[in-house]
Amino acid sequence: MYTTILKHINQHILLTEKEQDYFKSILLPVEIAKRKKLVQPSTFVKHEYFVVKGCLIGYYLDDAGKKNIIQFAIENWWIGDFDAFYNGVPSKFNIEAIEDSTLLAIHYDDLQLLFENVPKFERYFRILVTNGFISLQSRILSSLQNETTARYLEFCKAYPNIEQRVANYHIANYLGVSAESLSRVRRKLVKKSG
Amino acid sequence: MYTTILKHINQHILLTEKEQDYFKSILLPVEIAKRKKLVQPSTFVKHEYFVVKGCLIGYYLDDAGKKNIIQFAIENWWIGDFDAFYNGVPSKFNIEAIEDSTLLAIHYDDLQLLFENVPKFERYFRILVTNGFISLQSRILSSLQNETTARYLEFCKAYPNIEQRVANYHIANYLGVSAESLSRVRRKLVKKSG
Repeated sequence: MYTTILKHINQHILLTEKEQDYFKSILLPVEIAKRKKLVQPSTFVKHEYFVVKGCLIGYYLDDAGKKNIIQFAIENWWIGDFDAFYNGVPSKFNIEAIEDSTLLAIHYDDLQLLFENVPKFERYFRILVTNGFISLQSRILSSLQNETTARYLEFCKAYPNIEQRVANYHIANYLGVSAESLSRVRRKLVKKSG
Repeated sequence: MYTTILKHINQHILLTEKEQDYFKSILLPVEIAKRKKLVQPSTFVKHEYFVVKGCLIGYYLDDAGKKNIIQFAIENWWIGDFDAFYNGVPSKFNIEAIEDSTLLAIHYDDLQLLFENVPKFERYFRILVTNGFISLQSRILSSLQNETTARYLEFCKAYPNIEQRVANYHIANYLGVSAESLSRVRRKLVKKSG
């Protein structure tokens, strides 16, 4: 259960055995079935989640009730509503499992204590949030490009290995293009590389 | 010159005098005139910038050559192209002063050394990047809302005090609405609060 997360952390910081045990002691294992929601809009969010196994999407329902996928998460990604989690405001997002998933949750208060007790976790989370920032930025840039191929290739770069896991219509939604137009692009790229 | 940045840092971490001196020694003062560019697309980016005085915009030119403002920065904000800075890829952004501005630049290598020598800076930058992440997210949500008033109010929340400083057409560009429609909204809100 904890091997994946400790391996991920050890890519960025080195923990003693005692620090590893303390960290494991504050993680809460969560199993969530496909199509179930982890976070709903207008609720308060006390946890962030590390994906041990599975796949989730973070999406926003606009005024017209249309789903807009803002974020994907697979193994080794953290997912949550940062604004709600850090600023104590109600969530604006839905976070939903699109595969049966195993997660590790961390509570806001435990995370603050972790920063106090093992300050090197500041580095780990700084690097992660920086990567998250860059992913969000690439989503904005993608939405400003007209060319579906360029958008799709940006997506594959921002989310390596997700493109084989996730339904075509989910990626199309994230990119803001039609599923048909994305399928055409993907077929063309397969031909080219084949 | 350094009072503003040290005050900003001291809101998040406490530095000894020696640490303050070390930090000041790696900052490079930069003066930039209105309309001049700090970062251009397809160049490598070795610095991030703290705004001591002034105002800058980060924008992206889309395939059609249209300017899309992604980020504002005034006093106490950091601005840069994170993807280019952290991942060593060419920049995709323009960063331009829209007022005569005074900045403090930090070089990538000096920042890495700073993290090694004064690890509490990890905390400071973690908090900043988290706030930047939340701002970007609010820009995405804003672009998905149809209602200009809601978008504008989100903007005022994400960038407090910027709305009086920045030209109407810059905010309209950031929000992806017409300047006329934004002016109408702003007049209505002034009437309501008056």
